[in-house]
Amino acid sequence: MSQLTVALDMMGGDHGPSVTVPAAAQALSLLPELNLALFGPESELSPWLSRFHLQSHPRVRIHFCTQQVGNEHKPAYALRHLVDSSMRKALDTLAEGRAQACVSAGNTGALMAMAVKVLNTVPGVERPALITRLPRAGGGYTLLLDVGANVSCDAHQLVQFALMGEQASRHVLAVTRPRIALLNVGAEANKGNEAVRQASRTLQALGQMNYVGYVEGDDLFSDKADVIVCDGFVGNVALKTSEGVARLLLGLGRRRGLGWKMLTFWLKKRLSHLNPDQYNGASLVGLRASVVKSHGSAGSPAFLNAILQAVAEIEHDLPASIAHRFDTAPQDSHAR
Amino acid sequence: MSQLTVALDMMGGDHGPSVTVPAAAQALSLLPELNLALFGPESELSPWLSRFHLQSHPRVRIHFCTQQVGNEHKPAYALRHLVDSSMRKALDTLAEGRAQACVSAGNTGALMAMAVKVLNTVPGVERPALITRLPRAGGGYTLLLDVGANVSCDAHQLVQFALMGEQASRHVLAVTRPRIALLNVGAEANKGNEAVRQASRTLQALGQMNYVGYVEGDDLFSDKADVIVCDGFVGNVALKTSEGVARLLLGLGRRRGLGWKMLTFWLKKRLSHLNPDQYNGASLVGLRASVVKSHGSAGSPAFLNAILQAVAEIEHDLPASIAHRFDTAPQDSHAR
Repeated sequence: MSQLTVALDMMGGDHGPSVTVPAAAQALSLLPELNLALFGPESELSPWLSRFHLQSHPRVRIHFCTQQVGNEHKPAYALRHLVDSSMRKALDTLAEGRAQACVSAGNTGALMAMAVKVLNTVPGVERPALITRLPRAGGGYTLLLDVGANVSCDAHQLVQFALMGEQASRHVLAVTRPRIALLNVGAEANKGNEAVRQASRTLQALGQMNYVGYVEGDDLFSDKADVIVCDGFVGNVALKTSEGVARLLLGLGRRRGLGWKMLTFWLKKRLSHLNPDQYNGASLVGLRASVVKSHGSAGSPAFLNAILQAVAEIEHDLPASIAHRFDTAPQDSHAR
Repeated sequence: MSQLTVALDMMGGDHGPSVTVPAAAQALSLLPELNLALFGPESELSPWLSRFHLQSHPRVRIHFCTQQVGNEHKPAYALRHLVDSSMRKALDTLAEGRAQACVSAGNTGALMAMAVKVLNTVPGVERPALITRLPRAGGGYTLLLDVGANVSCDAHQLVQFALMGEQASRHVLAVTRPRIALLNVGAEANKGNEAVRQASRTLQALGQMNYVGYVEGDDLFSDKADVIVCDGFVGNVALKTSEGVARLLLGLGRRRGLGWKMLTFWLKKRLSHLNPDQYNGASLVGLRASVVKSHGSAGSPAFLNAILQAVAEIEHDLPASIAHRFDTAPQDSHAR
């Protein structure tokens, strides 16, 4: 296979192959240089592969496995007992260098644990973080991390997330001098918990970083920062809350009259940049290879977006740029 | 003055008397039984009182003071040095029994610290929480607490918030058997941080409570629970995020063509229940009297809503019902 290969965990998420196979087929037809390695149990995967003519596709390699990771599985259990799962096998392929990125819609905790074990973190990085991009009102994207990989974080981890987010903004979104902010409950210096305040003092002391201070929840979709840093509990709730509100507003027409239907159709087209389905795909950053986590509830267009995001990360080699940042500024990355 | 008196901190917030005075005037004309006690520095307050004919209104008592609490003031400083501030004087009046509720748009941390000192908590309640109501897609409201009074909470505090939220849902919103949920990063039992998981175990053990488990950020505006409990950092970020998204969507028409303007006008009317200005006003619960915290950025209609909320809490005597709950179930309220 060529250089551009993405490994796909075809199971996981709420819909499995009924969503992942059509998305894979569409990605192949959109990107002629893309190769895919597909992982899943034969009985569930094969009927869908046949239907979409992927069983003998020249740019597809199929790997059948016997297990899959469920949402109910604890990370430690998945790590020990689900070694022939589609998630694990996809990550193994990445570690063996036979793919450059992996996409899964499965259990976030298990994906994080397996990815750390199989791929390892970039030297100097304590914990990977889940990063996602939020569409701004005026166009462009703000990066938010962590959105769920670490449910509690100390100041040191928040500082590391800031460094990783800075690299992602620079190298994937081509922002020259990204503005870095911490998510807090107020803009004043005395607001927030100890971890956030300590991280703020450390970031202020990092001369070469464009640290702009605190932002609040209503700034997530504004243009105040290019990278917003928080712990994984707060980031996950903020992300899902915004998706909930957007879906609520965009979905209002569903069971009402024709006027509503026409209105929301029109609105949906114009607000598509705010539709969660359009910006699906968070990445685990800080690992030695790219791992993209799709929403569990993602439909095919959203899973396709996650695949395209994986391709973008391969092209920009985000892991290497993060490794470079942590290699050249060890005193920053270890600042407490 | 009669039984129904609300004390208003006319300063604080982004706009001060230019917002609070018109709101006060409107509240007086809407509710013929309402009395108001107004607090603020003479130089700033008087011109506005004259303009709205409140200087010799029969149901208004004016208290001039010399200080005001700013957003930059730390709670400890405000507590010690701003004893002649409009915020403090309004709370003093409440403690003296000359008003039954207080409304302020000022510094949340200072309001919390002063309220605890001046009013004290209900016996058994460790820390008050800031509670707000969120409009649901299908109508009705979900209560969310804490939205910013306590930036970090242990399991015991989360359980106490659940008990207080249950009383608020029952007595202010007349929900017979409120469904209580914890806000988390996933629905499965193994998700979340230690405080949330421990609180969940304790709530499950409370036989008489209708505890329904975990909900996620995108459930805030759904019909899964009547009361959603979280720490103040998470709740504040979730609330402000949802307001940010709603404002973004509702405000899109501002600088575009006529079609957009007509559309958003139509949309705004129909989505008014989702407009943050329509549901402004969070309450500090767990105190011996009602304290309503208006948004700092509230306009007059939003500040008016906060006053109406204070009136509703007086009518339902929420502090007494929380005191009753903590008095009759001490083993629950102290469960760890």
